[in-house]
Amino acid sequence: MAEHTTDVNTITITFPDKHQRTYPAGTTGYEIASDISGRLANDALSITLNETVMDLDLPVRESGNIRINTWETNDGKMTFWHSSAHLLAEAVEALYPGVKLGIGPAIEQGFYYDIDFGDHAVSTEELPAIEKKMIELARSKSEYVRREISKDEAVNHYKKKEDPYKLDLLNELEDGTITFYTQGNFTDLCRGPHIPHTGKVKAVKLLSLAGAYWRGNSDNKQLTRIYGISFPKQKMLDEYLHMLEEARKRDHKKLGKELGLYMIDSMVGSGLPIWLPNGTVLRRSLEAFLRDEQINRGYQEVITPHIANLKLYETSGHYPYYKDSQYDPIQVDDEQYMMKPMNCPHHHRIYAREMHSYRDLPIRLSEFGTVYRYEQSGELNGLSRVRGFTQDDAHIYCTHDQLKEEIKNCIDLTQYVFSIFDMPVDIRLSFRDENEKKFGGKSEYWERAQREIREVADEMGLDYTVAEGEASFYGPKIDFIIRDAIGRKWQLGTVQLDYVMPERFDLTYMGSDNQKHRPVIIHRAPFGSMERFTSILIEHFAGNFPLWLSPLQVALLPVSDLFNAQANSYAKRLREAGIRAKVDDRSEQIGLKIREAETAKTPYMFVIGKREQENQTVSVRRHKTGDLGTFAFDEYLDKLSHEIKNRHLPDNIQ
Amino acid sequence: MAEHTTDVNTITITFPDKHQRTYPAGTTGYEIASDISGRLANDALSITLNETVMDLDLPVRESGNIRINTWETNDGKMTFWHSSAHLLAEAVEALYPGVKLGIGPAIEQGFYYDIDFGDHAVSTEELPAIEKKMIELARSKSEYVRREISKDEAVNHYKKKEDPYKLDLLNELEDGTITFYTQGNFTDLCRGPHIPHTGKVKAVKLLSLAGAYWRGNSDNKQLTRIYGISFPKQKMLDEYLHMLEEARKRDHKKLGKELGLYMIDSMVGSGLPIWLPNGTVLRRSLEAFLRDEQINRGYQEVITPHIANLKLYETSGHYPYYKDSQYDPIQVDDEQYMMKPMNCPHHHRIYAREMHSYRDLPIRLSEFGTVYRYEQSGELNGLSRVRGFTQDDAHIYCTHDQLKEEIKNCIDLTQYVFSIFDMPVDIRLSFRDENEKKFGGKSEYWERAQREIREVADEMGLDYTVAEGEASFYGPKIDFIIRDAIGRKWQLGTVQLDYVMPERFDLTYMGSDNQKHRPVIIHRAPFGSMERFTSILIEHFAGNFPLWLSPLQVALLPVSDLFNAQANSYAKRLREAGIRAKVDDRSEQIGLKIREAETAKTPYMFVIGKREQENQTVSVRRHKTGDLGTFAFDEYLDKLSHEIKNRHLPDNIQ
Repeated sequence: MAEHTTDVNTITITFPDKHQRTYPAGTTGYEIASDISGRLANDALSITLNETVMDLDLPVRESGNIRINTWETNDGKMTFWHSSAHLLAEAVEALYPGVKLGIGPAIEQGFYYDIDFGDHAVSTEELPAIEKKMIELARSKSEYVRREISKDEAVNHYKKKEDPYKLDLLNELEDGTITFYTQGNFTDLCRGPHIPHTGKVKAVKLLSLAGAYWRGNSDNKQLTRIYGISFPKQKMLDEYLHMLEEARKRDHKKLGKELGLYMIDSMVGSGLPIWLPNGTVLRRSLEAFLRDEQINRGYQEVITPHIANLKLYETSGHYPYYKDSQYDPIQVDDEQYMMKPMNCPHHHRIYAREMHSYRDLPIRLSEFGTVYRYEQSGELNGLSRVRGFTQDDAHIYCTHDQLKEEIKNCIDLTQYVFSIFDMPVDIRLSFRDENEKKFGGKSEYWERAQREIREVADEMGLDYTVAEGEASFYGPKIDFIIRDAIGRKWQLGTVQLDYVMPERFDLTYMGSDNQKHRPVIIHRAPFGSMERFTSILIEHFAGNFPLWLSPLQVALLPVSDLFNAQANSYAKRLREAGIRAKVDDRSEQIGLKIREAETAKTPYMFVIGKREQENQTVSVRRHKTGDLGTFAFDEYLDKLSHEIKNRHLPDNIQ
Repeated sequence: MAEHTTDVNTITITFPDKHQRTYPAGTTGYEIASDISGRLANDALSITLNETVMDLDLPVRESGNIRINTWETNDGKMTFWHSSAHLLAEAVEALYPGVKLGIGPAIEQGFYYDIDFGDHAVSTEELPAIEKKMIELARSKSEYVRREISKDEAVNHYKKKEDPYKLDLLNELEDGTITFYTQGNFTDLCRGPHIPHTGKVKAVKLLSLAGAYWRGNSDNKQLTRIYGISFPKQKMLDEYLHMLEEARKRDHKKLGKELGLYMIDSMVGSGLPIWLPNGTVLRRSLEAFLRDEQINRGYQEVITPHIANLKLYETSGHYPYYKDSQYDPIQVDDEQYMMKPMNCPHHHRIYAREMHSYRDLPIRLSEFGTVYRYEQSGELNGLSRVRGFTQDDAHIYCTHDQLKEEIKNCIDLTQYVFSIFDMPVDIRLSFRDENEKKFGGKSEYWERAQREIREVADEMGLDYTVAEGEASFYGPKIDFIIRDAIGRKWQLGTVQLDYVMPERFDLTYMGSDNQKHRPVIIHRAPFGSMERFTSILIEHFAGNFPLWLSPLQVALLPVSDLFNAQANSYAKRLREAGIRAKVDDRSEQIGLKIREAETAKTPYMFVIGKREQENQTVSVRRHKTGDLGTFAFDEYLDKLSHEIKNRHLPDNIQ
């Protein structure tokens, strides 16, 4: 392994695991990757050198930190999709000669290209032919060739091509910074970087068409935007399309409406969900579950108002610094009030209400606290992106000596909570970048806390990643990323240490040395927001909630009016046992009653006819499973109580 | 009984029960009262004729509605206390010759007089002597004699007396409207009315002294305000003073702080209570109790946002008509939002979300919904007068045919709820005044509803009063007035019919006739507001809550560190049974631990020593009662579970 050197003809490359190697200046990213392993070189799509993404075959002339970007990394995917956009443009030019091209970037999931098809109105039926052409061009394994070019030459190129959009873009570029990329017969004005060759693209799906004004300005011409996604393996595309289809079926906005969980009403307000009766049962069940669990773990619940004097947020520093995401203050007499953007300062004031001894700590204050944050109306989305939401918030005030134990408790609670929903949790420890100095709190606290967080994670046998430079200004944090039933990842609650607010709110405790000390604060919220978590839960279970969360748990279906009395008597018994039960006493066919209960995703149906009445039994149907047989009513009631109490997952999540 | 007549020499008097009598014009109130009964004439203090309160001995010259005001009526008390203020002034003039008098009105509880004592600074120690003088003067049974007087004569009177304040008052009066009242040696410029003679005043207590600027203007001289209260019986004063003392001890602001129930923090905001851990347990227990009871009675819970688009309140008509009690709107993009002043319109929009059949009705939507209403800062008071509070709100949407049953259910729920707290409920049916035309909804609906409300009240065997003219614009209502442990009355939840909002929100249901109909809405809230009800509950129980509401239910007190483990093991068992238990494991004397648990009003204390550990028993102490003896732990756990489940009242409310 090479030593760090200052020789101008060599460069020192630092890898993510901190090990370093030296290379002659001008070594390419591909060569560096090959030096690690042939396989890595083969999988590499680009490199990131000192936070700049570069082509693999570009000579590296400066020392620094390197990451070799494969498909598994975000930078790798972005390179892959950007190159796929070029491939799309090449295919379109080949099939529709004379089209004019706008821009074609990678996006979070795939890529698009804005294209002027002239008089031709492209339809989605034409997309398969374009996909086919893209795959054909990909198979030729054309290299993406980078060329630096003078502005004059670039302008001439596009004048000859009569492409007004690229000429418009060139207007804003300076000579000496312009590059072209060419693969096969296609050349594009582009800053790069790109993957080595088109052959890496093994599977393509063009997803949709949309109109897009040039430069987003409605005075300009509307181009056709083609959205697509591509993968290095056909199997990945298949899985992605399956996931898309599943996500469509599970869409919480669709299910939320069908199952009567929530509504958004323009007269009440955009981004302000109303929890309907079924959704309220679900939410109250989640709250009760977490509340009980928190009480068991020594939390104390509080309730604070939804508005607060501006002074509070000036003290915390949230105002005016986070002004853009907050609503305008409301004048009340000679004071200004604000819809609260967070619960923390309220809890800090509760802590500050009385003097605490070290013996009283830790103090764990929890609240289902509603906060308001401005979101642009275009970004609002069902329950997942809203303007008012309720956090399952808590703040733990503890001594530095208690920190390790408290972090352990927080991680344990979070893991326990998500295990109940069968959601695997990935853990990321977000630490500060040692070179970055802009952090609150003493350095020794940070070091101790980061060491202890690692120790806790190791002692608990966690599989975790460490993200340096991802800590907040206030302190290190632990992020939890859960995976849902169709493999999507969602970042939910964090555990966040805070060395700053104890200072700002002058929070103290009396130590065993009879001196005042600052406590550390831990902010934590396993669900994050009741609204967003519920949206994920709806999609995770596709609306087929575990029994304990189901708004209606048992539908009692008498086969005729003759058995309504028996059904009502069963329903009463179920309700007395705390089971949510309802009789469908309409004079309808039993088949229709069953179908409607299935559509409503009611977990259990009790069919009641002559035999059931005589024997005090019920014919049980399970949603999605069908007939389970006939059981003594009492026995089945006990079974359901047990299933609810133990929060069993349904056998049929998928 | 006399008939109505138009004879100019006779007047027709209508009594509250609608019966009428005619009298010669000029008959006095006293004579009219005597015509009813000698006892009534003896108890009478004044009359109210066509909403004007008058002296008993004044000739009545016009026909109209009469009420004979005894001590039991509000007008009667006001007359009594106003006359007592004159008695106070007479006593002060006798004891402190040369004092100058300001004004002396009756107030909600008693009366005051503003007096300029010149250079003398009156102290509270002088008040008993004044009280004594008042009683002495009262015993002389001086009549309050009314005299109409010209402005000139009145001005001369006060010029001679050198009284600048009365002269200032006279400035604003017009000749021909001025009256003097004289009792004994004291004459006052006064509009009246007064009681017949001072002898009615049997008991007096001067309560406090305060400074009061003449006419409330700080540029003027500060007078001495003497507050007092008086009664027609000594026993009433004794009871009142006892109640005052009890109220002082029970003050929810004092107990709220001592018991850690809530705090008001100027940095968070005036009138915005923060529920501390103990208060949150209490509130959550109340909510859970009512929620369960409501679920049993077919309510569905919803959760709506704390803000809403102004359009919603423009539709309901609450904006701009109730603008003064609402906070200023908040601009969000091109819309205006408001902190919600009520939950109703949100629920109406939920109802309007889908088409309803008559078979779906009644629909009962409930919410613990927080609303915001502006109150002047001087009027804010602990939990009882706040700027944001949570209503235990619900709206019932039903057909006219279902109304009677639903009203019955609402009354039954309210009575049940207050019976749990041992709070007797007085019921007032507030109907419209038939002569008053300004009401929403069809007249036939009103008549039917008022008839049915009466029928329900009679069928339920309720003891109720009817208040005509007290209905709201929207519909008739039922008010519930509860009495607390020290006899104070509080108006809490109402049941309010509403014929207007179904029109404004265009709410309909499909009837059995396949036509659209308007539902009726019932608004109801037994507690009214969680904040205000909690303030009443704290004072009602003097903080000695029933076990099910107590924030901490059992304090485990090991007699020494040796028994901490046993105490913790018991505490774990209690918590598993859902009982809130805490171990006092400090190395302190058992006497101190018991005293502190008593001060914290912890209902049960389990003392644990050697014998208890060996026998698996506990020594039980009950708050305020003391030692109950030694019991097997398991047995006592069951007893407490039973006491909680059945919401037993403590034996020692007082």
